[in-house]
Amino acid sequence: MYNGEKLIERPLRWGMVGGGRTGQVGYKHRTGALRDGTYQLVAGAFDLDAERGRDFGTNLGVAPDRCYATHQDLIAGETGREDGVEVVSVATPNFTHYEITKALLNAGIHVICEKPLFFTVAECDEIAALAEEKGLIVGVTYGFTGHPLVRQMAAMVAKGMLGEIRIVDLQYTHGFNAGDDSDASEAQKWRTDPAKSGPTFVLGDIGTHLYYLSEVVLPDLKIERLLCDRKAFIPSRAPLEDHATVLTHYDNGARGRLWVSSVNAGNMGSQRYRFVGSKASVEWSDSHPDQLLFEVQGEPNRILHHGMPYLEEESLAVDRMGALHTEGLGDSWANIYLWIAQAIDAKRRGDEAFLKTHRYPGIEAGTEGVRWLENCVRSADAGGSWVEFE
Amino acid sequence: MYNGEKLIERPLRWGMVGGGRTGQVGYKHRTGALRDGTYQLVAGAFDLDAERGRDFGTNLGVAPDRCYATHQDLIAGETGREDGVEVVSVATPNFTHYEITKALLNAGIHVICEKPLFFTVAECDEIAALAEEKGLIVGVTYGFTGHPLVRQMAAMVAKGMLGEIRIVDLQYTHGFNAGDDSDASEAQKWRTDPAKSGPTFVLGDIGTHLYYLSEVVLPDLKIERLLCDRKAFIPSRAPLEDHATVLTHYDNGARGRLWVSSVNAGNMGSQRYRFVGSKASVEWSDSHPDQLLFEVQGEPNRILHHGMPYLEEESLAVDRMGALHTEGLGDSWANIYLWIAQAIDAKRRGDEAFLKTHRYPGIEAGTEGVRWLENCVRSADAGGSWVEFE
Amino acid sequence: MYNGEKLIERPLRWGMVGGGRTGQVGYKHRTGALRDGTYQLVAGAFDLDAERGRDFGTNLGVAPDRCYATHQDLIAGETGREDGVEVVSVATPNFTHYEITKALLNAGIHVICEKPLFFTVAECDEIAALAEEKGLIVGVTYGFTGHPLVRQMAAMVAKGMLGEIRIVDLQYTHGFNAGDDSDASEAQKWRTDPAKSGPTFVLGDIGTHLYYLSEVVLPDLKIERLLCDRKAFIPSRAPLEDHATVLTHYDNGARGRLWVSSVNAGNMGSQRYRFVGSKASVEWSDSHPDQLLFEVQGEPNRILHHGMPYLEEESLAVDRMGALHTEGLGDSWANIYLWIAQAIDAKRRGDEAFLKTHRYPGIEAGTEGVRWLENCVRSADAGGSWVEFE
Amino acid sequence: MYNGEKLIERPLRWGMVGGGRTGQVGYKHRTGALRDGTYQLVAGAFDLDAERGRDFGTNLGVAPDRCYATHQDLIAGETGREDGVEVVSVATPNFTHYEITKALLNAGIHVICEKPLFFTVAECDEIAALAEEKGLIVGVTYGFTGHPLVRQMAAMVAKGMLGEIRIVDLQYTHGFNAGDDSDASEAQKWRTDPAKSGPTFVLGDIGTHLYYLSEVVLPDLKIERLLCDRKAFIPSRAPLEDHATVLTHYDNGARGRLWVSSVNAGNMGSQRYRFVGSKASVEWSDSHPDQLLFEVQGEPNRILHHGMPYLEEESLAVDRMGALHTEGLGDSWANIYLWIAQAIDAKRRGDEAFLKTHRYPGIEAGTEGVRWLENCVRSADAGGSWVEFE
Repeated sequence: MYNGEKLIERPLRWGMVGGGRTGQVGYKHRTGALRDGTYQLVAGAFDLDAERGRDFGTNLGVAPDRCYATHQDLIAGETGREDGVEVVSVATPNFTHYEITKALLNAGIHVICEKPLFFTVAECDEIAALAEEKGLIVGVTYGFTGHPLVRQMAAMVAKGMLGEIRIVDLQYTHGFNAGDDSDASEAQKWRTDPAKSGPTFVLGDIGTHLYYLSEVVLPDLKIERLLCDRKAFIPSRAPLEDHATVLTHYDNGARGRLWVSSVNAGNMGSQRYRFVGSKASVEWSDSHPDQLLFEVQGEPNRILHHGMPYLEEESLAVDRMGALHTEGLGDSWANIYLWIAQAIDAKRRGDEAFLKTHRYPGIEAGTEGVRWLENCVRSADAGGSWVEFE
Repeated sequence: MYNGEKLIERPLRWGMVGGGRTGQVGYKHRTGALRDGTYQLVAGAFDLDAERGRDFGTNLGVAPDRCYATHQDLIAGETGREDGVEVVSVATPNFTHYEITKALLNAGIHVICEKPLFFTVAECDEIAALAEEKGLIVGVTYGFTGHPLVRQMAAMVAKGMLGEIRIVDLQYTHGFNAGDDSDASEAQKWRTDPAKSGPTFVLGDIGTHLYYLSEVVLPDLKIERLLCDRKAFIPSRAPLEDHATVLTHYDNGARGRLWVSSVNAGNMGSQRYRFVGSKASVEWSDSHPDQLLFEVQGEPNRILHHGMPYLEEESLAVDRMGALHTEGLGDSWANIYLWIAQAIDAKRRGDEAFLKTHRYPGIEAGTEGVRWLENCVRSADAGGSWVEFE
Repeated sequence: MYNGEKLIERPLRWGMVGGGRTGQVGYKHRTGALRDGTYQLVAGAFDLDAERGRDFGTNLGVAPDRCYATHQDLIAGETGREDGVEVVSVATPNFTHYEITKALLNAGIHVICEKPLFFTVAECDEIAALAEEKGLIVGVTYGFTGHPLVRQMAAMVAKGMLGEIRIVDLQYTHGFNAGDDSDASEAQKWRTDPAKSGPTFVLGDIGTHLYYLSEVVLPDLKIERLLCDRKAFIPSRAPLEDHATVLTHYDNGARGRLWVSSVNAGNMGSQRYRFVGSKASVEWSDSHPDQLLFEVQGEPNRILHHGMPYLEEESLAVDRMGALHTEGLGDSWANIYLWIAQAIDAKRRGDEAFLKTHRYPGIEAGTEGVRWLENCVRSADAGGSWVEFE
Repeated sequence: MYNGEKLIERPLRWGMVGGGRTGQVGYKHRTGALRDGTYQLVAGAFDLDAERGRDFGTNLGVAPDRCYATHQDLIAGETGREDGVEVVSVATPNFTHYEITKALLNAGIHVICEKPLFFTVAECDEIAALAEEKGLIVGVTYGFTGHPLVRQMAAMVAKGMLGEIRIVDLQYTHGFNAGDDSDASEAQKWRTDPAKSGPTFVLGDIGTHLYYLSEVVLPDLKIERLLCDRKAFIPSRAPLEDHATVLTHYDNGARGRLWVSSVNAGNMGSQRYRFVGSKASVEWSDSHPDQLLFEVQGEPNRILHHGMPYLEEESLAVDRMGALHTEGLGDSWANIYLWIAQAIDAKRRGDEAFLKTHRYPGIEAGTEGVRWLENCVRSADAGGSWVEFE
């Protein structure tokens, strides 16, 4: 069980680009990063409105002169300092991820970036090469995968407790965009503008969470072909989609189905993951992240609770609150931030052996998400037909 | 609320073909038919084993001389009697439905048949014409659609409480065939033999329930095109499927997804129906048939309970136990049998006006189910590609 | 699994007193009695309004001349007939139970009576002696105890799967009387009139269900002392109660708590039973009667489903619909009626050996319910203080 | 929605007594205190084992020379420093709370103490007077009451949405002490030793959470009399209890029942709160803290989700993650710590107006918890009889 004791030598000097007062995402980054003394928030370019950004940053405890107007200013201001930022989180609209990440890496600063990482796999490959060259880490905030019971599912699959995997059923839906966008907030508007959001809306915004979590649980399964049928129920969102279904054929013969939607009116259930094997299934939802349904064919259904001694060690190791006490999304983000911090620390120490086995959502995870989106769009653009996964 | 008072002039003299001691389906027919005094079980050819069938029928209270060896014997024996059967239920393997139904109709006997009705639409059309010519009813036991809250969903859609329908999400899965068929019962074996089961296994066996219920709730929605991807995870079941996914485009632009499987290991949840509109969604499961989830975007989610005064009249009229008291599948079957009895009674009385508006699963519902299966198989056989619905 | 085959030699000729068109309880009796060919409804005094009662009975298929105005008429009319009723169900207000039961027994007719059986233990003892003398059965419709998973709980306790019983937690509440009785139906009004309802309202009306079910599951536990605190939140119901809490000390040291209320506003959950042992607990609710929660300390929680092969034989034997298919309250009543029919049949055949081990809610169960009520009232009247159970 | 911006002028210099590596409670304090920049952990006497405590504190980022062996050393070491601690959390066994709190207050240090606060109301009153005299705050970590939906319940009651309160149903149970204490950890052992735990075990350990939360939701309801029946199912725990039931009569005529137990084998549901009014009820559980059941009699049951615009402003103001994203116990503790920090800040600033309306669990809440325990024990010691609440 994680209890807050340091797992890296000293706290990382941390900055943010984006994540200001008017959006919700910034707090998720901060509540994830700041609870364990692993990061210290020392700088930021929090807001497009420089004045508001400075006021906000100051309120977070950042020195006023380290609250910058732009990411360029931040890089310029921090690069010279002995106590300059070592790692910066990018919590800005999608279309800026690539440019900001590149600039930070070129300045020798580690990056933690929102998903979907970039617009194209080509961009991902370029950034991966740059990070490699600079000896820097790029983490991606797939924030749901830090829950202890996600690790539990992965461990159960690895031990063969499900048998051969047959069916992968993934869903992340809500109804908050069931109406049109006439009253949409700024934070919402850019998501349906291809120039700012990239080639997808809900596939990238929420579908990549599904895809990455499935990779964590099923690292050995590879997609052979897929079919994506997408649609904008609110026409102004076209060519981007507010609803999509993806069918998947995996290389072992397994079948997948995936549903993302932001027009599932009234739906509060959000995510649902079900992995079906020849002997048993596991099912987990982020709505009740402390419970895992484990169903062995022919036996009573079982509900596993986080933090209980009967769980696998991999799960218990990343538990924070202990059995009976609920964990929330913030605890999952805290683990993600911790694991990225450990990667940065290892990189700094040149500990490549640690990095070989250390699991965290890095540049590869970000790249695979973008690759999956490219395949989905290719299928959708071909009228929802099957495409070989490339 | 239905309380057992007669809704037809006198009980129908009823017989069964199949539904004997070794299977489970017969009791569902009897518990549905016999609780309200609408049917009297007076004859049967219950079993391929004539002796066992007679012993069984006698135990059900049928006179020994009216327990027949075959449906041919039953027709021969009953046709001559003044008190001969008026309606016969067919609860035999799929491949016998067509022949037995035809023989019964030719003998002037109404028919209630298991789903999937026949193997082809051509057979359905032929039988429909025969029934029409003879002035007889063919009912189909889509046994889940008698639940009061199914009527409630239909009424809510009709009143526009969901807005424009956008998404139809259907699932009927279980895991009872997750293992291979080496120990399969006779009742299971024929289902995976194309000669006896017809062109499908789970699509026909359980998928037709999903399709018919969606027709009840959404009578105005028509399928424009669909895509069916099916697979036999247990190879011996090929070319039939133990898992299938169907994507649907409706004529109003709505999107559907449907999942049937009997290899969903450990799954006891069974059926799930979700209808999403532009304003709200309803969701119902046969596992807890007394509750209906009604989710209006932006408002608290609501749980409606059967039998409560706030429900629509259509739902309350077919309630049997009243609020607080659970109804089960038997109550739903009882309604289905009652509605078919009312159709037979009206037919007998020549009351075509009643039949015009009376809702029950008849030959048309059976035909539509077979048509849907034909389209699914055509798509699946074309490699899981989109086909126009014909 | 019960499938409708006869378990007694021939159907019982059955009548009803009460249970007419204006109440809900009659249908529960009929749907319980009539589905298996064990009872044939041949006579009745269904209604205080003789005309309405005749119309109603005729609609149920009873011959008009056997639809009587009163129970006295019924006894007079039926006694003389060769095909007269053998058993009569009493579904009238509480204050008439004793008189009608006595008259029926004196006429040589078996009785099935609603709970609470009578007003006093003295009356129960007198009727028990009369039934014994006449060689007749008195059954009591504790209608929830016919569910297969109730038998499962009893079997698990008997096998020691829970360890030593420590805690008994019982609840039957709803909110249908949260408002005052100004608009109460006739069927409701008498329940709060001590002259007609007896010494209790909710304790007798719904609490006796809890108590009897706990006796079925825990036949060896005896109450040593109890404390009952009751209250009428709607003053016009006093001295009767619409809310009561009972604490119990059992002879083995176990502790019980019980809650009955009809002012639990909005509550649709109804009954909840939890039996806690030194090693494990079971929990069941009539709201989802097909599921049983089995919780072994230190292990994953388990959900058992009715009809599954892993259940105890006692439970599977009384299952009707099979796994995956829901059972409702009607199925439970059907089992209760069947078990009483078997008792009557055995009594008729003089099979005392069968009766010794046959489990059904008989006069003893009815008496114990009344005894429990007497103790509750004695405690409540003493200011909610502890009383030794007598 | 709270987003981490400062609500007090500058972070408080914070220390801990107890909360070391071998227990679980320390992390709850730290994850609550450290996520918003409101507290900085600068000192601690974390462990009875001074060496282990220093190692642990250092790992938390505390300077080695400010990791003390005892609370006396901490006071001695910090009092002299300009940057000495301003507030200290006491997370030690119950019997030390009084002495440590007194010493800290006498040294001019604010205190945040675990529950149950002290052994007697007399001690509470003495400490309250001392705090008053010194101008210091004593906060009590009733850690579950920081959830946004707890505030929602309080707001709904205050607005009369439930009508007149009639029933208060409280439960906090688990099964982790179902076995005997032969293998109990140190952290568990002292809890059943009256010298160290005080006059109660589960009543104080978990029951006080129930009582305080009910006070938050129902500030106007006062207890008139109560009855407590307690028992040690594991005899070695006597005279303390591992199971207790409390019945309550409130001054407005409402009735309460409360259950605490640590021998509820297998139970993972933990806490359940139900408040029943004349018109409607609310029900909340810490197991799924993001949902609130709101049941209006005669209407569909409603499920309210945290962070949704339809909630009361009091609830939304303390939300951290936003709708769709789960909050956990850590988020609730964070609010509690924040509210206490605001109280300390106001005290420091002499802002008594703010303190008059600011809601946080302070010395009064701690005192009321101890008063309730004293009444429970008095009743239990009198054989579980009714006592007037004093």
